[in-house]
Amino acid sequence: MEKLEQLYEGKAKRIYRTTDEEVVWVSYKDSATAFNGEKKAEIAGKGRLNNEISSILFELLKEKGIESHFVKRVSETEQLVKKVTIIPLEVVVRNIAAGSLSKRTGIPEGQILPRTIIEFYYKNDDLGDPLITEEHIDIMNLASKEQLNQITEQAIQINEVLTSYFAQKNVKLVDFKLEFGTDANGHLMLADEISPDTCRLWDAETNEKLDKDVFRRELGSLTDAYEKILQRLGGLSCTK
Amino acid sequence: MEKLEQLYEGKAKRIYRTTDEEVVWVSYKDSATAFNGEKKAEIAGKGRLNNEISSILFELLKEKGIESHFVKRVSETEQLVKKVTIIPLEVVVRNIAAGSLSKRTGIPEGQILPRTIIEFYYKNDDLGDPLITEEHIDIMNLASKEQLNQITEQAIQINEVLTSYFAQKNVKLVDFKLEFGTDANGHLMLADEISPDTCRLWDAETNEKLDKDVFRRELGSLTDAYEKILQRLGGLSCTK
Repeated sequence: MEKLEQLYEGKAKRIYRTTDEEVVWVSYKDSATAFNGEKKAEIAGKGRLNNEISSILFELLKEKGIESHFVKRVSETEQLVKKVTIIPLEVVVRNIAAGSLSKRTGIPEGQILPRTIIEFYYKNDDLGDPLITEEHIDIMNLASKEQLNQITEQAIQINEVLTSYFAQKNVKLVDFKLEFGTDANGHLMLADEISPDTCRLWDAETNEKLDKDVFRRELGSLTDAYEKILQRLGGLSCTK
Repeated sequence: MEKLEQLYEGKAKRIYRTTDEEVVWVSYKDSATAFNGEKKAEIAGKGRLNNEISSILFELLKEKGIESHFVKRVSETEQLVKKVTIIPLEVVVRNIAAGSLSKRTGIPEGQILPRTIIEFYYKNDDLGDPLITEEHIDIMNLASKEQLNQITEQAIQINEVLTSYFAQKNVKLVDFKLEFGTDANGHLMLADEISPDTCRLWDAETNEKLDKDVFRRELGSLTDAYEKILQRLGGLSCTK
């Protein structure tokens, strides 16, 4: 398979066409952004770390029977994924209060929620990716009821797999963001990435933050934090 | 029944104890506030208008079999209501896009929604009354599932009654906010007020705003607008 022209450049990835119509080539960038693009930086090594961590997690989910757009990792910073049309929703799964949930509700950061919750945000930079309800999704036709049910069910399954996997690695999965897409046949599947850019990951003993909050709040070296996660997941970085 | 000491002062009303333990005395103030209290004014006559309009609407709902805390109007600016504990939710019913819905979703103001939607906001000034989902309500224990179902059902019924009533008066009911409370027996009922402070009301032909947006956006005289609504509802003000 060959990498052809660039189709799209996002905040964290570039997408290229390939010789296979159903597959696109993803290149993870070293760019870090936060607060809806207000804070930006280039951080050498970030693209490699997210590509590798995301590849490990998509492989894990595949083993557990959860389909995603992931095909395979092809280089340190690149992976092949099935071509999908992204549903414009950020699907956030939360186990422990943090970030915007704490700001919105006053539930203190670190408080374990009585149950896992799922939130939907409208993927729209101009509007600042606002929280929306299922009724907003319905009136805006962002996803069908059927798709929303599938998304919710898969998000819960993914949370179960990832929470237990990270727990084995001595990491708390506080919350994470998923995106879903549909292929040319309308088949729904997990897409985008799962990495410390899209998860809150805390050391299980010290609550040390090992995710993008290190960048958002300037808590130290982002790559050191992400490297720790990669190491705990079995690490590809030392052997490649 | 006698009016005793003040129990509480809110942004728009004062609540007094009465000689009946189950009833409180509500005095509507002339204060106008918007944007979570950032904009404030005293507007002579506003208290009377809201007290009268709210009384008419609560009477109408009662005729249609919808119970509320309303007992009776006792003066130009005062009414008696059953004592309830307010559930800390602002229940917003929307028929036409406006205000924060347009800001949040990009749906242009004035667009008729494909269906009526209900939103819940957490009544909490410190947090800025944020939009929350049913799952947030659940984890914060703001209302039970049973209460939320009752609230939703009643909100839809109230919308049907009010929309058709206002249509007869040549007014579009764009959206409105409800609050609910429980009495000493835990019985749920509609509470607070229904007035141009809590509804968006547009002239059916001209779309002239006849509600608090006149104050929020400085579109003219608030009392002129509210007086028009009161007149269309059959008006008490001219005869008293």
